[in-house]
Amino acid sequence: MRRREFNYRLLAAAAGATCSFRMGASPVAGMGSVAGTLTIDQDRLISSLKELSQFGHNPQGGVTRVAWTKADIEARRFVMGKLMPAAGLKVRVDPAGSIYGRREGKEALPVILFGSHIDTVPEGGIFDGALGSLSAIEVMRTFAERKVETRHPLECVIWSNEEGTHYGRGLFGSRAVVGEFEPGELEEKDEQGLPIRDAVAGIGGNLSRIGDAVRKKGEIAAYLELHIEQGGVLDRAGVPIGVVEGIVGVVRYQAVIAGEANHAGTTPMPDRHDALVAASRLVIAVREEVQREPGRQVGTVGKLAVHPNVPNIIPGQVELVIELRDLSMEKIAGIFKRIEKRAAEIAAANGIKITIQTTSTHASAPATAWVKDAIAREASAMGLKTLNLPSGAGHDAQMLARIAPMGMIFVPSVGGISHSPRESTRWEDAANGCEVLYKTVLAIDRRS
Amino acid sequence: MRRREFNYRLLAAAAGATCSFRMGASPVAGMGSVAGTLTIDQDRLISSLKELSQFGHNPQGGVTRVAWTKADIEARRFVMGKLMPAAGLKVRVDPAGSIYGRREGKEALPVILFGSHIDTVPEGGIFDGALGSLSAIEVMRTFAERKVETRHPLECVIWSNEEGTHYGRGLFGSRAVVGEFEPGELEEKDEQGLPIRDAVAGIGGNLSRIGDAVRKKGEIAAYLELHIEQGGVLDRAGVPIGVVEGIVGVVRYQAVIAGEANHAGTTPMPDRHDALVAASRLVIAVREEVQREPGRQVGTVGKLAVHPNVPNIIPGQVELVIELRDLSMEKIAGIFKRIEKRAAEIAAANGIKITIQTTSTHASAPATAWVKDAIAREASAMGLKTLNLPSGAGHDAQMLARIAPMGMIFVPSVGGISHSPRESTRWEDAANGCEVLYKTVLAIDRRS
Repeated sequence: MRRREFNYRLLAAAAGATCSFRMGASPVAGMGSVAGTLTIDQDRLISSLKELSQFGHNPQGGVTRVAWTKADIEARRFVMGKLMPAAGLKVRVDPAGSIYGRREGKEALPVILFGSHIDTVPEGGIFDGALGSLSAIEVMRTFAERKVETRHPLECVIWSNEEGTHYGRGLFGSRAVVGEFEPGELEEKDEQGLPIRDAVAGIGGNLSRIGDAVRKKGEIAAYLELHIEQGGVLDRAGVPIGVVEGIVGVVRYQAVIAGEANHAGTTPMPDRHDALVAASRLVIAVREEVQREPGRQVGTVGKLAVHPNVPNIIPGQVELVIELRDLSMEKIAGIFKRIEKRAAEIAAANGIKITIQTTSTHASAPATAWVKDAIAREASAMGLKTLNLPSGAGHDAQMLARIAPMGMIFVPSVGGISHSPRESTRWEDAANGCEVLYKTVLAIDRRS
Repeated sequence: MRRREFNYRLLAAAAGATCSFRMGASPVAGMGSVAGTLTIDQDRLISSLKELSQFGHNPQGGVTRVAWTKADIEARRFVMGKLMPAAGLKVRVDPAGSIYGRREGKEALPVILFGSHIDTVPEGGIFDGALGSLSAIEVMRTFAERKVETRHPLECVIWSNEEGTHYGRGLFGSRAVVGEFEPGELEEKDEQGLPIRDAVAGIGGNLSRIGDAVRKKGEIAAYLELHIEQGGVLDRAGVPIGVVEGIVGVVRYQAVIAGEANHAGTTPMPDRHDALVAASRLVIAVREEVQREPGRQVGTVGKLAVHPNVPNIIPGQVELVIELRDLSMEKIAGIFKRIEKRAAEIAAANGIKITIQTTSTHASAPATAWVKDAIAREASAMGLKTLNLPSGAGHDAQMLARIAPMGMIFVPSVGGISHSPRESTRWEDAANGCEVLYKTVLAIDRRS
């Protein structure tokens, strides 16, 4: 078995699934560099990425820059004190702690917003979030150097606490923009007992006026986010630019399989109501029903607990979590309906009881057609192949999609690895992504 | 789901699987009482059982008389100070803490030994162990009252720490008789830090001369043990006496299913190497292979752990324990061979690695043919139907089988429930079992 590329415990903390990772790299050849013709400064982008990676740098490799910790605060200082001013941006921190850098436009138009995040999971890589954030600033710097005047005001943004490592839900800054918090969430404390209120104050935010972070529909002309794919689709296809169709919906279900605990020695096989045997059939049924129809939907049983979980007792109960993801919520509902039917058949055949309840529903966030078109057009004009694909992981863009036209640009993750020190994206792919972002901002600005 | 009849945590402590339990009772009608014709005193036996059940009595019902605790020590005092003397027995405690009560015979012959244990699991019932122990004393008392003189000396025995609740391995007294301890076992401490040495001293044992507990081949003419079945076979069949064919062998295997942990959102279904899906196929394969051939063999996956066990990560690894039991060790080996083949097929089909190792082997202990015959003959002479069946649970008798002819008498457990306050055996069945024990001792004594 290949060496693990991640720390399970830390991944579990990042359970908001806002980013992905993969074991085992299989680097492939380059994907049509056009570096010679770039407008943005590839070398400057690379050196910014390298410089940022020093904040929270692990001696063993990779980066631990968990949101709102010392490493994150220092990285934010670097961005606000050095990179953004060098790009001629007016810097502000919103009440949630998200950093905005603004460049005015010529007309009284809604803002074009683009950015990502710089917090990482523990033992993460140097591209996840950072590439989109520093590319946004590089785009701004290029505009400044070239004295490009846009019609729209432009803002780049570094979202606060995307990963949700210590404060569990993630997408904190972008959720503040749409005003979505769970009841009591803002009164919580982290594992060390630090109130979230104080943690946010520590990065220059202010939960007392969190409502001021909200941005209304119409305020934002479009939101763009460049991000590494984290999956291996682009890398395997040898395509340098992914046009994201949307961020998939995620529905989770808790299944309780209630059989009859019994002595593993004295209970004849025909008399058993083994909850684990039934649960095993359900796990396989989930896989089969997800794969029964064509498409890119995925379904996973990632968590499962057996009771009492000792070798000599027939399992009396099993609990497991089924997670379904797709761009189409209807498709998810249809798959679940089939899974429920299979569960009922399994329960009847095994003389046990299976109950399944929906525990959380995160609606899918489709990207906006004309934004996707703009991205695809600009990439093609650069001679770069594109591929349309869904984002199986969550991103701040899914929150922005609620109030603004939204589009995301993916670049390949080598071997699909992320959330790992071995996370990697080729420099040319990173630079191409930044250039596509630059061109797309201009295209949107030209749009009447 | 029916109310749980047992405490999982405590059951886990009794993982030596020396007794069984079952959820849900389904009492059936009586099984041909012959109480009017009994030699032993049914009322006295019942009143002894009730009296013993006061030691460790739980207000909520049932008994917690864990070996070597205060309740056990007081119960032992009751047995040694009241019951055994009343039966005219000469009492001694061996170095392991087992209690022997001896009645001399007329000839210089090996001893006929019979008994059971009085320690219980936490929140256990009043029959498991106690019935066989107090019946042995009742048999002796009947001999005394009736002034029956036997050719062989007779000993009844209360084995020390059969359940192994606090000292994990159980069968302590009977293992001492065959000198089987694991390396370092006698130097261990319990969970409260009490050395096993001191605990045994507390019940009158002495680990410094533990070797004196050993009994040699030839010393014992036969060993008999009356016990509740704990399973539901006799109860369902409506048969009052079970003739035990032997105590099954138990082999445990640890399987490690190593797949590839990956993001549940970004990893397409065809690219997955899901360890839980493969483990599920293995769980079902175990069940299928155990049931592929006729017989009373059983196989269980009771313990299973998923890593990292979070909803949004495809399981990278699963470990599980396979347990196989049968009277025939060859049959167990054959089933395992088929399971291994299935595992290899599953691994290949799922692109993962499965390794399976044997972690423990407890050989089966067949009962002795002529002892079984004697039990069956005496029961039939009383007009009681008998059924031959294996013991799926472990008993002290399995140790004695190594050095002496061995036989066990089972009586029905109502609904197959044991290790529970709801454990129950009908008084008439208990008394019939005691009478069969009495008659069998006499039959063995007559044997030349």
